[in-house]
Amino acid sequence: MKLKVLIIMGSDSDLPVMEEAAKVLTEFGVPFQMTVASAHRTPERTLRVIREAEKNGAEVIIGGAGMAAHLPGVIASHTVLPVIGVPLDASPLHGMDAMLSIAQMPPGIPVATVAVGRAGARNAGILACQIIARKDAELTKALVEHRKKMAREVEEKALKVEKRSENPH
Amino acid sequence: MKLKVLIIMGSDSDLPVMEEAAKVLTEFGVPFQMTVASAHRTPERTLRVIREAEKNGAEVIIGGAGMAAHLPGVIASHTVLPVIGVPLDASPLHGMDAMLSIAQMPPGIPVATVAVGRAGARNAGILACQIIARKDAELTKALVEHRKKMAREVEEKALKVEKRSENPH
Amino acid sequence: MKLKVLIIMGSDSDLPVMEEAAKVLTEFGVPFQMTVASAHRTPERTLRVIREAEKNGAEVIIGGAGMAAHLPGVIASHTVLPVIGVPLDASPLHGMDAMLSIAQMPPGIPVATVAVGRAGARNAGILACQIIARKDAELTKALVEHRKKMAREVEEKALKVEKRSENPH
Amino acid sequence: MKLKVLIIMGSDSDLPVMEEAAKVLTEFGVPFQMTVASAHRTPERTLRVIREAEKNGAEVIIGGAGMAAHLPGVIASHTVLPVIGVPLDASPLHGMDAMLSIAQMPPGIPVATVAVGRAGARNAGILACQIIARKDAELTKALVEHRKKMAREVEEKALKVEKRSENPH
Amino acid sequence: MKLKVLIIMGSDSDLPVMEEAAKVLTEFGVPFQMTVASAHRTPERTLRVIREAEKNGAEVIIGGAGMAAHLPGVIASHTVLPVIGVPLDASPLHGMDAMLSIAQMPPGIPVATVAVGRAGARNAGILACQIIARKDAELTKALVEHRKKMAREVEEKALKVEKRSENPH
Amino acid sequence: MKLKVLIIMGSDSDLPVMEEAAKVLTEFGVPFQMTVASAHRTPERTLRVIREAEKNGAEVIIGGAGMAAHLPGVIASHTVLPVIGVPLDASPLHGMDAMLSIAQMPPGIPVATVAVGRAGARNAGILACQIIARKDAELTKALVEHRKKMAREVEEKALKVEKRSENPH
Amino acid sequence: MKLKVLIIMGSDSDLPVMEEAAKVLTEFGVPFQMTVASAHRTPERTLRVIREAEKNGAEVIIGGAGMAAHLPGVIASHTVLPVIGVPLDASPLHGMDAMLSIAQMPPGIPVATVAVGRAGARNAGILACQIIARKDAELTKALVEHRKKMAREVEEKALKVEKRSENPH
Amino acid sequence: MKLKVLIIMGSDSDLPVMEEAAKVLTEFGVPFQMTVASAHRTPERTLRVIREAEKNGAEVIIGGAGMAAHLPGVIASHTVLPVIGVPLDASPLHGMDAMLSIAQMPPGIPVATVAVGRAGARNAGILACQIIARKDAELTKALVEHRKKMAREVEEKALKVEKRSENPH
Repeated sequence: MKLKVLIIMGSDSDLPVMEEAAKVLTEFGVPFQMTVASAHRTPERTLRVIREAEKNGAEVIIGGAGMAAHLPGVIASHTVLPVIGVPLDASPLHGMDAMLSIAQMPPGIPVATVAVGRAGARNAGILACQIIARKDAELTKALVEHRKKMAREVEEKALKVEKRSENPH
Repeated sequence: MKLKVLIIMGSDSDLPVMEEAAKVLTEFGVPFQMTVASAHRTPERTLRVIREAEKNGAEVIIGGAGMAAHLPGVIASHTVLPVIGVPLDASPLHGMDAMLSIAQMPPGIPVATVAVGRAGARNAGILACQIIARKDAELTKALVEHRKKMAREVEEKALKVEKRSENPH
Repeated sequence: MKLKVLIIMGSDSDLPVMEEAAKVLTEFGVPFQMTVASAHRTPERTLRVIREAEKNGAEVIIGGAGMAAHLPGVIASHTVLPVIGVPLDASPLHGMDAMLSIAQMPPGIPVATVAVGRAGARNAGILACQIIARKDAELTKALVEHRKKMAREVEEKALKVEKRSENPH
Repeated sequence: MKLKVLIIMGSDSDLPVMEEAAKVLTEFGVPFQMTVASAHRTPERTLRVIREAEKNGAEVIIGGAGMAAHLPGVIASHTVLPVIGVPLDASPLHGMDAMLSIAQMPPGIPVATVAVGRAGARNAGILACQIIARKDAELTKALVEHRKKMAREVEEKALKVEKRSENPH
Repeated sequence: MKLKVLIIMGSDSDLPVMEEAAKVLTEFGVPFQMTVASAHRTPERTLRVIREAEKNGAEVIIGGAGMAAHLPGVIASHTVLPVIGVPLDASPLHGMDAMLSIAQMPPGIPVATVAVGRAGARNAGILACQIIARKDAELTKALVEHRKKMAREVEEKALKVEKRSENPH
Repeated sequence: MKLKVLIIMGSDSDLPVMEEAAKVLTEFGVPFQMTVASAHRTPERTLRVIREAEKNGAEVIIGGAGMAAHLPGVIASHTVLPVIGVPLDASPLHGMDAMLSIAQMPPGIPVATVAVGRAGARNAGILACQIIARKDAELTKALVEHRKKMAREVEEKALKVEKRSENPH
Repeated sequence: MKLKVLIIMGSDSDLPVMEEAAKVLTEFGVPFQMTVASAHRTPERTLRVIREAEKNGAEVIIGGAGMAAHLPGVIASHTVLPVIGVPLDASPLHGMDAMLSIAQMPPGIPVATVAVGRAGARNAGILACQIIARKDAELTKALVEHRKKMAREVEEKALKVEKRSENPH
Repeated sequence: MKLKVLIIMGSDSDLPVMEEAAKVLTEFGVPFQMTVASAHRTPERTLRVIREAEKNGAEVIIGGAGMAAHLPGVIASHTVLPVIGVPLDASPLHGMDAMLSIAQMPPGIPVATVAVGRAGARNAGILACQIIARKDAELTKALVEHRKKMAREVEEKALKVEKRSENPH
């Protein structure tokens, strides 16, 4: 099975959040690999896992990191694959540090930044699918179905809330 | 010629910044169209230009907006194409408002956020090319060449600065 | 009974906070309906519930949302009814993201923004009453009474605190 | 002619920005009065102009202020009319101070906060019209027309920008 | 016994923090009174408690409030006594809202702002003593003694920490 | 003539802003001295000018500084006189750095913080007068007169603005 | 044994965080001393412990403080030894106050600022070692070994995470 | 002559600010080299200039960068020499992005962060001298002299300002 997405996180403590991206890829049947590499502690390893992923057919790389959060930008500096960055809430500054460190990339080397934390990790997975779907009509259909499913879930939640407002406590 | 990228901006006053994205696409020979649509003033038009772009073969949509900057998110709610959001510095809050309004999208509907302003617009163009290049080996080569060119430019600038530090004022 | 206020929230997880608005409307005897609609996941539904509310006589729409919080602005783009936006504390950025996404609306499409979270939801309810009271002298009286009641509550709290400062622990 | 809207600003130096609200009211034919009153320097005057406006039939009060920007909140403490607050960019903190001082009102006394500066002042005028329009079907029609006009303006701007992208410089 | 300091808080829920100011005044034997008054819910009461305090000989007024935190500024608008403002951490924005709403007073009506929360409440008490001490040589001596006591406490803490670094765990 | 207020600024480049404090003191006839001392570059000088001012009868010390802005806190650590801190807008962070560095003093050593920049410097002067006025009934009267004068100025400005709204451009 | 590093913290409550610096120095066999001194409560003590440390051969001083966090800057004003500042998360503002108060030192008196909290304290210890290592080739080797060890730890964590992505839950 | 300090900047447009560091090193007679290398555009070059500087005897590396500002952290990941980071004001976010991206480095790889912009660049130069001075008693003396000179300059400025307050305009 070909690899489509590589998920790199800066530390294994980021796994509970970054797994949200993995869950989405599993849902959509997109083959992926997760690993740990640190932009600062293992710059060579970071480069190596990127090169391997490129060889194995990766189409998108997702990088998640907190604090100064250089990982997604360093990944982007080593590849012309699209790189998605997930800012993590891993310091007393609550992810604002990671958000700015990931989004404010200088001209020439973009990182596709998503929201801080769990919501962002989930969206990283979906964005990866949207990119891969450019070559995969089945995946496009699945994304459209997923939108419809989300809409149905909203309608169901709406029913509950509407009932509540008719029969208030 | 098929359309590959649609650039939508919230107002024609955003053109001087958003043209940075257009310049990149021109450089890389990627066919694009620019237009104006407002998430709030012309919700129907926004939907219509997205649908037309989808029919004409668009692979990526770039949305640039300032202030509450809902445009990229609203675009993303109407398509499963990858959407790139450029936060513009268009209020006394200097683009921090637009940055958060674009990046903090809820789970399910991602927007690929780039830096505030001109640097972000340029990076939106490059990120669009990186996505399209997944199906276009020539474009991948051009992106790799562009990286090398940027590296050469850095080396040239380095020479000037190094000379300066040898012959200080 | 005619509907006067529609409360829309982005997710049923927003109910515990948005109920503060509902409680106020119940207190003042203003007929309302609560529902869930997502600006991004169900754009059509959002438009539909607004149109229905307009037909049923709604005078004000309250939208509550967290993160990028586009819901109130998207509602405002579909109606000329006054729209009140409640920023929710639903991300590691503690509602500052929602505050800016709601308040910084571009010229032409206002949203009446209130405080982040529970206090804001309560104030959304009162502001809705103040708007409706423009055609309802009884409601105006009730609002004036409510002010007097709040003042009496402050006086009662003052007594307790004053006693405390006379008989310190 | 009856007064419908009172616009109070904290200083005459706020006039160039607050006139945006006045222009909108003039456009829509809504009778208004502008004055200066300071929450802190003239608390009695502030109360007096509110009481006079109430007697003269005002339906909405707009308060614009910068820095600690207590004016809109102090107005709201003296009336049950809807109060709209415009945060002004009048200190080195660029209006973030005024935004928080106006929006973060405690439960019980809401202020309808709009964007910082000129865009906010314009939106304050439109929001005032939307509130008054609850009793004025002609004004509702005018607001709907205004929306259509804004949409047409966007379409015109779009044409220019689209032409530009076909004939790039 | 003459009153020297009036402590006003916006709500009785602020008591646990504002008591820090009361504790300091008790420590230094400065007669004070604590009460509750809301700038917005009880503007008349606020004025009345200020006037009474002035008549009873108050030299300083301390106001503590969270969120938009207008109370200290409104107090300052009604008196030429020195007013000290304590920003409270009473919203998801963690007191940054209250800090800016208190400190950024416009020219003419100062509020002496201290730190957010408990540390600020304690410092409000000490600052009040420093002001009153201008007419009270005994209090000046007590403040100097308090400084020496704080210094001794630091020395004692230093001994413990120094011992720890000699005998690490 | 006895000295009443010492104004210390961190650099002579702060003079144009800090002179606002001096102007107020001149207006109210309060004898003062201005000087430059740096908390970091001249810690001994800082201590010396404080001791001299104490000997010469100073009742209040005003410290103005930008960036890390330790000067007011360092002054406060050397005296039990009331110390007023003026945060200056002297870095790309626009005075937010100085605001937090001055206001967030730890328990035990308060600094009375005012607004960033020129408005704050003016208010520092008035706050100093308010403190000194505790022993000077004439100064209290002058402060009350100043309030009335400010009120009259507001009324005059109001007239101009009101006229404008009757005869719009 | 000669002293190499002095760690000063503003309060003994900072010990649990500042011990991270001590642990690093213990790991690398660098002799250090920890103590408590307050820039504001014990300015003389602060100067004295610096002078003693200088006499005892200290090469680097680490200062940790929260809130206005003047300690590192005050240390730097008394010595030309390199001073490292650790901003602590000790107020409702979550260490942003301390970060700006430490980093934004005026020209002439630098403080080497590290991250907020525990991560910063650990990095202060490593930075101290890096500075001392300029005269100590053994320490340089130990730092290089430490880098390799960190890299190995990342590789081990990577294995676990990779296994996880092969055998998802 | 041996190299002591390498100054790397992300772009030649950073030269006017980073030259402040060079000026300091020239003043103190510390041999240095300035160059340009981009963490993202030229990762290999960045590594190469670090390795060359290490071979040529560099004791400290200064990195200056704006926006996401990864350069200093990437330098630090490649060397155990002390690395000083200068955040530059190079985006609409005014250097707050660069400050957080440089200071919030994860545990293990410190960067010694200084103030945003010109003041920070100057302090980077002085901090480099302080580190080098650990092996160079002459440089230590020069740093002590520099402190005295700064103190004298403050005294001279003080004279001017004091004269001004005696002869006000």
